Amino acid sequence: MTVPKVTAEDYIEILAFYARQIHLMDALKIEEYADTFTDDGVIDHAHRNERLAGREAMLAAMRAALPRYRDVVPRHWFDHYLIEPFAEGDGWRVVYYCLVSRTDAQGKVDFEPSFTVEDELVRLADGEIRTRLRVIHMDRPAS
Amino acid sequence: MTVPKVTAEDYIEILAFYARQIHLMDALKIEEYADTFTDDGVIDHAHRNERLAGREAMLAAMRAALPRYRDVVPRHWFDHYLIEPFAEGDGWRVVYYCLVSRTDAQGKVDFEPSFTVEDELVRLADGEIRTRLRVIHMDRPAS
Amino acid sequence: MTVPKVTAEDYIEILAFYARQIHLMDALKIEEYADTFTDDGVIDHAHRNERLAGREAMLAAMRAALPRYRDVVPRHWFDHYLIEPFAEGDGWRVVYYCLVSRTDAQGKVDFEPSFTVEDELVRLADGEIRTRLRVIHMDRPAS
Repeated sequence: MTVPKVTAEDYIEILAFYARQIHLMDALKIEEYADTFTDDGVIDHAHRNERLAGREAMLAAMRAALPRYRDVVPRHWFDHYLIEPFAEGDGWRVVYYCLVSRTDAQGKVDFEPSFTVEDELVRLADGEIRTRLRVIHMDRPAS
Repeated sequence: MTVPKVTAEDYIEILAFYARQIHLMDALKIEEYADTFTDDGVIDHAHRNERLAGREAMLAAMRAALPRYRDVVPRHWFDHYLIEPFAEGDGWRVVYYCLVSRTDAQGKVDFEPSFTVEDELVRLADGEIRTRLRVIHMDRPAS
Repeated sequence: MTVPKVTAEDYIEILAFYARQIHLMDALKIEEYADTFTDDGVIDHAHRNERLAGREAMLAAMRAALPRYRDVVPRHWFDHYLIEPFAEGDGWRVVYYCLVSRTDAQGKVDFEPSFTVEDELVRLADGEIRTRLRVIHMDRPAS
């Protein structure tokens, strides 16, 4: 393959970035979570045709969703990262699996449908990684 | 320990290999999935005494299994890779956990029994990684 | 950020350490699992106010728990490791997600409530990694 390969150092940094981002999201620290996106970052819920462009739109949508997480603890589980450096510019296209568990006050666990997520990550001038684009596809059977 | 250790670079390359292989399998791209095995690759479903030797046998078994995935989206989740370089030759013995989620058209999720998988991976002359042997053990209680 | 960053080599070694430790635990090899802790290691089940200090206390608690795993195969799934090197000394503070699946003899899978785990890992003089402290928090909704 002639696809440029991600270095081991960048791969680990990307895993560490996701760990930090997802701990913030699942802890409902929505301001800090929003800070892990670029200022013009976009979250595109492809399956429900909802496109959140920019920090304020993201925060409004997350604030509206908070009541859904009053009685359950969400945990986003990721796996199988496909990471491809941009041909130009400092960043990566990342595709991965996502499964969301919800633990309620009695300790009962259930799951949201699995998702496949496509991200564009960029490295800013200060060396930090941010998400510039997140497209979320709900997994649906072919039939 | 005197066990030879996998390098960080190889470890990451192995993770990236599995990510690519499993995205292909779960997308039911069975020809491309078969290409991630060596030509003489073997898949051994130890729990049901089924041994698929070579590309044609694999493809036939996968084609026969396709109808099972018409109404659900399978996702194979891996964790806890034990990776040990071969004492001789370019490759690794890898053991890991596997859990399969199935999301149906209504978004309902269920799970197949967990598995433990033992792989032999080899690096070909062109630098690419392939699976040479996959032995799949269904997890069963001791009692 | 001025937080010291874990190197890619250490990160991979930590993943390999957890893989080995968790395979031992889930295989109910409790002596070998206990060996992955320092001699004065502590497991603190914060949610049930149980603090196991030292190898003998750990082993006694694990022996007492064994009957719970006679009819199911437990698998501990980890994700989203936050890894921070100690400011002083050779080791890391690690925080991660944990979900436990249980597969019974019929192949039915259920899940224990999700957990968040905080570990202190140390590197001994011989280069080996051990867990010195493990604090286990059951995830509970805010409400």
